[in-house]
Amino acid sequence: MMRRPIIGVVGTGSVSPGADAAAEAVGREIARHDAILVCGGLGGVMTAAARGAREAGGTTIGILPGADIHDANPYIDFPIATGMGQARNAIVVQTAQVIIAIAGGYGTLSEIAMALKIGKKVIALQPQFHIPGVLSAQDAVEAVRLALALIESPPSPCLSV
Amino acid sequence: MMRRPIIGVVGTGSVSPGADAAAEAVGREIARHDAILVCGGLGGVMTAAARGAREAGGTTIGILPGADIHDANPYIDFPIATGMGQARNAIVVQTAQVIIAIAGGYGTLSEIAMALKIGKKVIALQPQFHIPGVLSAQDAVEAVRLALALIESPPSPCLSV
Amino acid sequence: MMRRPIIGVVGTGSVSPGADAAAEAVGREIARHDAILVCGGLGGVMTAAARGAREAGGTTIGILPGADIHDANPYIDFPIATGMGQARNAIVVQTAQVIIAIAGGYGTLSEIAMALKIGKKVIALQPQFHIPGVLSAQDAVEAVRLALALIESPPSPCLSV
Amino acid sequence: MMRRPIIGVVGTGSVSPGADAAAEAVGREIARHDAILVCGGLGGVMTAAARGAREAGGTTIGILPGADIHDANPYIDFPIATGMGQARNAIVVQTAQVIIAIAGGYGTLSEIAMALKIGKKVIALQPQFHIPGVLSAQDAVEAVRLALALIESPPSPCLSV
Repeated sequence: MMRRPIIGVVGTGSVSPGADAAAEAVGREIARHDAILVCGGLGGVMTAAARGAREAGGTTIGILPGADIHDANPYIDFPIATGMGQARNAIVVQTAQVIIAIAGGYGTLSEIAMALKIGKKVIALQPQFHIPGVLSAQDAVEAVRLALALIESPPSPCLSV
Repeated sequence: MMRRPIIGVVGTGSVSPGADAAAEAVGREIARHDAILVCGGLGGVMTAAARGAREAGGTTIGILPGADIHDANPYIDFPIATGMGQARNAIVVQTAQVIIAIAGGYGTLSEIAMALKIGKKVIALQPQFHIPGVLSAQDAVEAVRLALALIESPPSPCLSV
Repeated sequence: MMRRPIIGVVGTGSVSPGADAAAEAVGREIARHDAILVCGGLGGVMTAAARGAREAGGTTIGILPGADIHDANPYIDFPIATGMGQARNAIVVQTAQVIIAIAGGYGTLSEIAMALKIGKKVIALQPQFHIPGVLSAQDAVEAVRLALALIESPPSPCLSV
Repeated sequence: MMRRPIIGVVGTGSVSPGADAAAEAVGREIARHDAILVCGGLGGVMTAAARGAREAGGTTIGILPGADIHDANPYIDFPIATGMGQARNAIVVQTAQVIIAIAGGYGTLSEIAMALKIGKKVIALQPQFHIPGVLSAQDAVEAVRLALALIESPPSPCLSV
């Protein structure tokens, strides 16, 4: 069986116009390519990306920190109630085949680093930190195109830091 | 927004003809009522229930113990790679709105008890243990009908053990 | 290096005179035998067992559901802040070499079942459920003596349910 | 009750002479100040720090990724078997009151970022990344002195990134 590609979107949980616009566009592109969006299921970039995906007819999974599926933002089709707080970030990066990181602070940085640690590729839009090994993209269209290319033909393993 | 109901199916991970037939029928009924099936994503009852749901056009989520989405059985639409071993059972029972337990050993018993502990209703088919507070059903049709009724009109909170 | 034996104590988080007296005696016996007590770190049986251990000069570890070490009861030497809610029960049963279960409701039942699932022995005092495979003891002295005997000479693997 | 201070040490799991020497000195200083060392319980910096602490008569806790306490390095007094893989890093940073990070790659970076995210102070020796908000120290003596000062008189909350 061929499963649809799963792309993770991580970024700040606070509202931020620039990041939200990028996230919404990323969500839309993910849906247009019939990929699945996985994110943390709450606010800020997570809401914007899920809204973009849903408005383009896509599918959204939210890996929630709390134990109640009703915490999910309204654009999440499939809420997962982990009850594991910050540790749920590990589930987002393990479930996604590639990560797109949009702006974000320390929480996003920890997800980026965890993804790189387990060998997942990370594509950054509006990066806040310079982390060797993170790929950059000009905009949402390029980020999602790159993400799908990496899922279809994974590069050979790189040396880890 | 109205989300589709989410029904959890738990049971043994080993192949067992009686339990598998019941699980497949439960999966089919869940799909027929347009509910979402959430399970542990691996073998035995989990595979049979997901197969039943998929063959009836339904949607399946698998909350995996390992960190690799490719561990999921082939009938899982949305694999969640928790990497948390046994502790992933907590995510299954928190994400589901009602649990249907089919046969099963100690692992299933721990999921039943965890569900009851957090106030989720549990419906048992082919129960292996007598646990006060577990609801019983004659067959898959009755189990899923009861599960949906409980999601639509949750009973008032009961005294916990 | 020889580590000291680690005995887990699980039971209700509510105050219950009969269970608390048993838990305090179990804690005391664990300390007298220079074993380490691991528990969930909160109230009820967990507080009573830790108090018994500490008053007899023992060592106590509390695996907390929350993310703040200050949630631990005052008799815990080493609080572990999991932030993982109910899923922390898996850590208690994995860390302990044998489990002593005292009274308790559904939460305790889920810990007992999880322990049996992963092949750990469980000794029950004042059991609330009849679970095949659980060992019984008359009192705290016998429970701890049996626990230490099982750690020193583990029985050959049994058939699992 | 006053608990002893808990200092987390994070860093690479691979052997690295420079990092190991620093980690051993950090472990020794932690023990000399009667603080508790918490770490990930495995190799590299984790082994070196625990060895330093134990040789100076200190106390060591290892939060293991696996489900078996026997995975811990021989200098761990209290192994905690989380079975949660990478997600165990969240437990290390939540349990420690301050983090000392020594060298390290992406895994260490993710722990640093997670600590900063939840408001814990991080002191770096031999830093591999420049992360705003991380405090620096010249050597082990200074790092542990600073860590203890931060635990005794926590600074007022800072703006988060």
